[in-house]
Amino acid sequence: MNSIELLIKNFSSLPGIGKKSAARIAYYLLKADRNYSVSLANSISEARERVRNCSICGNYTENEVCDICSDTMREKNTICLVEMPQDISVIESTGVFKGQYHVLMGHLSPIDGIGPDQLNIKQLMERAVRDSISEIIIATNPSVEGDTTALYIQKLFEEKNIKITRLASGLPVGGDLEYTDRLTLMRSIQGRLPL
Amino acid sequence: MNSIELLIKNFSSLPGIGKKSAARIAYYLLKADRNYSVSLANSISEARERVRNCSICGNYTENEVCDICSDTMREKNTICLVEMPQDISVIESTGVFKGQYHVLMGHLSPIDGIGPDQLNIKQLMERAVRDSISEIIIATNPSVEGDTTALYIQKLFEEKNIKITRLASGLPVGGDLEYTDRLTLMRSIQGRLPL
Repeated sequence: MNSIELLIKNFSSLPGIGKKSAARIAYYLLKADRNYSVSLANSISEARERVRNCSICGNYTENEVCDICSDTMREKNTICLVEMPQDISVIESTGVFKGQYHVLMGHLSPIDGIGPDQLNIKQLMERAVRDSISEIIIATNPSVEGDTTALYIQKLFEEKNIKITRLASGLPVGGDLEYTDRLTLMRSIQGRLPL
Repeated sequence: MNSIELLIKNFSSLPGIGKKSAARIAYYLLKADRNYSVSLANSISEARERVRNCSICGNYTENEVCDICSDTMREKNTICLVEMPQDISVIESTGVFKGQYHVLMGHLSPIDGIGPDQLNIKQLMERAVRDSISEIIIATNPSVEGDTTALYIQKLFEEKNIKITRLASGLPVGGDLEYTDRLTLMRSIQGRLPL
């Protein structure tokens, strides 16, 4: 396999990139500015070397503790529980939440052999006690696995005097009632709010 | 900018990859097998270092002369003229053409300052004489620029006793007459063949 074939093969293993897109990218890189291709190659190596999980919440960071956990201005007694580190940046982009995060590193999925011990659940329980957490907002995905995980966490904390909430499911803003799927519409009716 | 942000920024500069896909790829790489991310980074650097243009036809190669030009089994007196090296692999995949290639490295585009001197046209004329070429198949893209370039080349060779042909335009095989655009349909009528 020559360099171009290897480049195409490697790119086509990335999520959302098929063989044609991979070829397009490979040929683009051959013509692109050399500084750019060097920077791209280096940024891949460096991200893998430098990025690790925050020792407190599990978020990606280049330090021992992530920026959010070390930010003294943020609320200390609310935790937003997410499945993956990348969920944090999406929630942060809303600017609405000013508390702490905790990353489960997945969701319960017995079929894939992922039980409570494979997720950062023990650390969450320790943290909840240590930091006298008053509310845990469960922001796992609104999927079967995410819901199951949310239910499991809620049961765990049942007698712990901690408020457990879940992100609301419902109509996406700017969406169209006509094109909303049945399950989402069901949830938005069940979760209706007084105006 | 931290490593993850840089990684996302770099990926989002690739063709066909927006900010969301870039983020998805970046987070995928952080979780992926370390060997894979090393191989991806290396293959980018190595392709840029090793790949150059064939000194005869302009195709991408890791040697002085590309595999096609050094293949003694191929017809020597027919040249297929393409815009870019990547066009060669598409034509090769048909298995129909067994001659030589010549890469223009673009198409005529006065608006972008690309005239005949910016393309490998002089080399083509020299090669045509040196290798006593009998036919040049012009396989530039069926676009305004590709057609203009084809016309220019055809005029250049007008009195040279070389057969100049152009790839046929027409209905894509498996396509539908109803959904064919007007220009393509016009060309397929003009280029109709006896059955």
